Amino acid sequence: MRYSISFLLFILCLSAVSAQQKQLRVEDYANPAFRPKVLQQLQWIPGSIRYSYIDNSKIMAGSLGSTAAVLLSLDELNTGLKVIGIQTDLKGFPGISWKNDSIFTFVHETSLISFDINGKQAVVLNSWAESADHYDFSSNNDIAFVAKGTLFVKAAGAKKAIEVAKGDDFNILCGKSVHRDEFGISKGTFWSPSGDKLAFYRMDQSMVTDYPMADYRPATAAKSKQIKYPMAGASSHHVTVGIYDLKKRKVRYLETGTPADQYLTNVTWGPDGDLVYIQVLNRDQNHMKLNAYDAKSGKFIKTLFEEKHEKYVEPLNELRFLPVQKDYFIYQSQRDGFSHLYLCRTDGTFVRQVTSGEWVVTDLLGFSKDAKLAYIVGTKDSPLERHCYSVDLLNGNIQKLTTEPGTHTVLLSPDERQLLDSWSSQNTFYKAVLIDVKSGEETILSEQGDPLKDYNKPEISVFTLKAADGKTDLYARLIKPANFDPSKKYPVMYYLYGGPHAQMVQNRWLAGADMFMIYMASKGYVVFTIDNRGSGNRGREFEQATFRQLGTAESEDQMVGVNFLRAQTFVDQSRMGIFGWSFGGFMTTTMMCRQPDVFKAGVAGGPVMDWKFYEIMYTERYMDSPQTNPDGYKQASLLNRVNELKGKLLIIEGLEDGTVVPQHSYAFINECIAKGTLVDFFPYPNHEHNVRGKDRIHLYMKIEDYFKRNL
Amino acid sequence: MRYSISFLLFILCLSAVSAQQKQLRVEDYANPAFRPKVLQQLQWIPGSIRYSYIDNSKIMAGSLGSTAAVLLSLDELNTGLKVIGIQTDLKGFPGISWKNDSIFTFVHETSLISFDINGKQAVVLNSWAESADHYDFSSNNDIAFVAKGTLFVKAAGAKKAIEVAKGDDFNILCGKSVHRDEFGISKGTFWSPSGDKLAFYRMDQSMVTDYPMADYRPATAAKSKQIKYPMAGASSHHVTVGIYDLKKRKVRYLETGTPADQYLTNVTWGPDGDLVYIQVLNRDQNHMKLNAYDAKSGKFIKTLFEEKHEKYVEPLNELRFLPVQKDYFIYQSQRDGFSHLYLCRTDGTFVRQVTSGEWVVTDLLGFSKDAKLAYIVGTKDSPLERHCYSVDLLNGNIQKLTTEPGTHTVLLSPDERQLLDSWSSQNTFYKAVLIDVKSGEETILSEQGDPLKDYNKPEISVFTLKAADGKTDLYARLIKPANFDPSKKYPVMYYLYGGPHAQMVQNRWLAGADMFMIYMASKGYVVFTIDNRGSGNRGREFEQATFRQLGTAESEDQMVGVNFLRAQTFVDQSRMGIFGWSFGGFMTTTMMCRQPDVFKAGVAGGPVMDWKFYEIMYTERYMDSPQTNPDGYKQASLLNRVNELKGKLLIIEGLEDGTVVPQHSYAFINECIAKGTLVDFFPYPNHEHNVRGKDRIHLYMKIEDYFKRNL
Repeated sequence: MRYSISFLLFILCLSAVSAQQKQLRVEDYANPAFRPKVLQQLQWIPGSIRYSYIDNSKIMAGSLGSTAAVLLSLDELNTGLKVIGIQTDLKGFPGISWKNDSIFTFVHETSLISFDINGKQAVVLNSWAESADHYDFSSNNDIAFVAKGTLFVKAAGAKKAIEVAKGDDFNILCGKSVHRDEFGISKGTFWSPSGDKLAFYRMDQSMVTDYPMADYRPATAAKSKQIKYPMAGASSHHVTVGIYDLKKRKVRYLETGTPADQYLTNVTWGPDGDLVYIQVLNRDQNHMKLNAYDAKSGKFIKTLFEEKHEKYVEPLNELRFLPVQKDYFIYQSQRDGFSHLYLCRTDGTFVRQVTSGEWVVTDLLGFSKDAKLAYIVGTKDSPLERHCYSVDLLNGNIQKLTTEPGTHTVLLSPDERQLLDSWSSQNTFYKAVLIDVKSGEETILSEQGDPLKDYNKPEISVFTLKAADGKTDLYARLIKPANFDPSKKYPVMYYLYGGPHAQMVQNRWLAGADMFMIYMASKGYVVFTIDNRGSGNRGREFEQATFRQLGTAESEDQMVGVNFLRAQTFVDQSRMGIFGWSFGGFMTTTMMCRQPDVFKAGVAGGPVMDWKFYEIMYTERYMDSPQTNPDGYKQASLLNRVNELKGKLLIIEGLEDGTVVPQHSYAFINECIAKGTLVDFFPYPNHEHNVRGKDRIHLYMKIEDYFKRNL
Repeated sequence: MRYSISFLLFILCLSAVSAQQKQLRVEDYANPAFRPKVLQQLQWIPGSIRYSYIDNSKIMAGSLGSTAAVLLSLDELNTGLKVIGIQTDLKGFPGISWKNDSIFTFVHETSLISFDINGKQAVVLNSWAESADHYDFSSNNDIAFVAKGTLFVKAAGAKKAIEVAKGDDFNILCGKSVHRDEFGISKGTFWSPSGDKLAFYRMDQSMVTDYPMADYRPATAAKSKQIKYPMAGASSHHVTVGIYDLKKRKVRYLETGTPADQYLTNVTWGPDGDLVYIQVLNRDQNHMKLNAYDAKSGKFIKTLFEEKHEKYVEPLNELRFLPVQKDYFIYQSQRDGFSHLYLCRTDGTFVRQVTSGEWVVTDLLGFSKDAKLAYIVGTKDSPLERHCYSVDLLNGNIQKLTTEPGTHTVLLSPDERQLLDSWSSQNTFYKAVLIDVKSGEETILSEQGDPLKDYNKPEISVFTLKAADGKTDLYARLIKPANFDPSKKYPVMYYLYGGPHAQMVQNRWLAGADMFMIYMASKGYVVFTIDNRGSGNRGREFEQATFRQLGTAESEDQMVGVNFLRAQTFVDQSRMGIFGWSFGGFMTTTMMCRQPDVFKAGVAGGPVMDWKFYEIMYTERYMDSPQTNPDGYKQASLLNRVNELKGKLLIIEGLEDGTVVPQHSYAFINECIAKGTLVDFFPYPNHEHNVRGKDRIHLYMKIEDYFKRNL
């Protein structure tokens, strides 16, 4: 009898696996089935209350209460192009930009083309000869573009482009993003509202150290790829802002003064196009001046106000002028401890603080036409979520507009009465809805069900633990292995990042976990993550707890997570592995060295090993300079800690990594060699700071294999 | 009772280990106790029958039948230098060169100094301002030196150096070795016998591809170190030979003609200093012309003779003119299948073959004054040994002068009646003796006993196995684990090289094994090596068996070794690891891919992965070019075989390796990434083609760890 019972149980298990529990494979990281089919190019059509998106070879459009219908087919676009002599056969829609309710523009090769969906008619608005690596159009369809570091402007009606500012693609760059994309900077050209002038960045990095890189792709000899890399404490680049006057065809540089290695951040045109505002930050990053400059003469006009902090200030947002009262603008700052909005006047007065409380504004979507309301996205309901709110600029009254718990990405309609809301939550894969702000009426645009429903999805829980300071709540995510059996003991893959600005744990799909973590859980690993002090969107004190000593408070907080795991009966303490990338690679190595008895194996990808090798803008904000904070750099440096390493550590490096340059890893390895410490290393020769594309599968195979061999 | 017996056994074992069997540590690789204390700078003193060597701070001298005595102390040298105003305190003897029986010269900083041991008197013979990276003195104490690629001559009496040929240290190099030190070339300046002229190489490598390297040593940003690297089938450098006339202060280039990428090898001055002989080899390396040029006019005089072979010819030796008959010289060639000496005349006639047989001449030490005898070193007694012989140039009669079996390094006395013979054999650590050629009388200079006598030295055996061709004898070396127990099964570390010119198995100390192999044997590994067809000193047919298909015959022969091991009862077939460096790294990867079921783990250091990435001179000799032998390159390329890899492979790379550039490994890894093959890698960032110095201990720790983890 006993035999037959056992036999029956066995059959039941088998059928349960085969019918309901598909097995994840490491390749599933890249399986499109596990990524939402987001509505491509979802946007509002101006002058209307319709939205559009691209569905393969069709532009779809819809409105509240209706189903989206085909607005234009790719065939129609191709035909329209052929009519005006452009012999092309587009296989997919280019990026489109609506000009009004019937005309959109797009770039095709080196032309800006408009297309009228009514007449199905294409018009070439502008074209240029040079192949540009960056472009920006004015409201008049004039183009500013950069070719090999030189900035050109080609007016819509002109025969040829004008060279505005000469660069050489190495020492001098004009019209490109500067300061290594810190301080919210992402581009280098800024058209004035009327399009008669162009503000642009010019960066001289001739004084910045060269760093040697190589491209190993060629079938014959590898090619040198020297880059400029400003390391903490070393000479920094010099940035200026030029104003090109299209009528006068002349450039004037703003008198931003010295020291030349200051930061010129958040360039904003005044609404009339006569003034340019720049948030000028000193290299020490503890003193910001909001300066106004005359766009015509380049003269410094005045400092509207200043902001200082003994640790650092970090301007991240352009001024946002109100639509009606042109001398009012919104300034965003974490001066009260959390990133909030302030209503200011151009005379420098602070009219009032608009938002407040122990939460942060993460986006300012826009204003109502009467300038009474601002629409924002923020963490008011929970640091784990993002919701859209309207805020009364007069009294600060705030109203939540997105209802479902989760992480919402919102587009405000041109008449500011409707929202396009794309969102997910821990258990909601993807949903896109159109919301009428007043009535709350919703139309579902897309709703996609759980792609893991046929799989044995592991249990994910999110909870708080008290930080090492004994008072601060930290958010943690625990993923139990598939087919979890509380009486068993499981190995751990501890995943962490830990650096500023980022949050690993959120109320979004899988609580922010990725498919590799789910895969590892399906392979029997407990997967755990906790966001330590120093990480993002929790306010200034939380972030600045790590100031001048990166790695210290972070690792203390990570030990809270470690101790939580150690207290779980299902955790095999002797088989804990740790994995992180970039700052997370720094943290992985930090934990392996500073807490050598916790983790048996670790994988550190693109790690910072000594902050003196990392870039000036980021590093000096958090660490000051190696000259002014030698002890902090020494403490944080992993080069001084190779003796402490006990576990097996695999360092992974993209050999074309110009963000965290490979020298970090090589210097660490050199120390290991000098001290007789064994360490492992693996390069992805053709990759930059991350291993992207299909090679990421190999990366995950490598990591899984490392934990399999060493845990 | 049982307890006490056990206890007693335990004590016995312990004392056995502690008294007789010291345990080797991996660090012992660098332990000086295991390297012979060779007599430093052992040399003959001309005009005498005395020899000298350096013993720490003393020059010792001795002669047949006597004990060496102090000739000069370092203090005396330092005092002598101070007398002439050179304020220095040498801590050790510089390299000395005897001019006659009482005067030697040496270089101190930028001066050539002579020292008379009788008067204890120093004289500055020449001095120069520039810091030279290479220098060469004429018989008149004039110096030729190279600074940053430019060749200078400073006459002993002159005030300043003359720039002879301008180089730039990158594209143009003058006075330096060329053709990547192939064809026996090791320097770039050649003084005429009287010292009135200087022949020198000039290499233009502007047409050679740049290869990017970096120096990761700096404490801040790494530094670019671009090199020139001529890859097989690509553009090669152009070499010419200039003659500088010291009196006329003029350079004339020899009319060596085209094609410009031919090889100018073995530059030899005629005895009268009027002619220069060059063995000119075509790029295809199958046609050599021995040409004579007029040193004054640079004109081509004549081709003395030519040598062709359908595979390749490889000139490796300068002409050696006889001391009396100045129109007679010895030419060395493997034209009869083995490298032998030929007596020739300057009119191009071959007078006679001097040595012959199935063995090779490895060194021509010199001639008797009457030019009747040549003194040579060769493999006549065994390919595993090196002995000194005298050969009668008239009738080829040959007489063996070194008696003890082993590998002898010999210096012939000025009166050619005595030999300084330094030698070792499998069981003789180091012995240096002075031999009287006629009487055979020997004086022992140094005899050093077995440094492993207190260790449990593993048993080493050398034997032959038949090659895969079924007829050729291959030499193999088997090292059994320490405390060998034939009833046990042991893992294997299979070590191989396999490339041309080299022999791993020889009758020298430990049969050519190194201390890492002995260490691994002490750790319980069977260590095995076999020299396959294609390796060195076995004659042309043996070497050329691999022509146009490197890796094929070699791996077939290595399978002979594998099958031998598999047939041994004490070998654990499931735990065999393989390790090799350079060509041995190529062979390791070849074996791992072509014979995927043999080795569970492999370590390939500085490996060639595709011959198209290796240098022109070496590669095209054995493989022709990628254009003329595409199938051969494809077969040999390991980039095409990553799918075949089953075992664990660790690739090790010196990141400053300018010999086998890291691109080999990166290209292989890129293929692994593309094909989803797991592979391991470890870099030594500051090392070149080999990991030298104390870091080599880390390398061996890494290799041992890899076999421990993966076998």
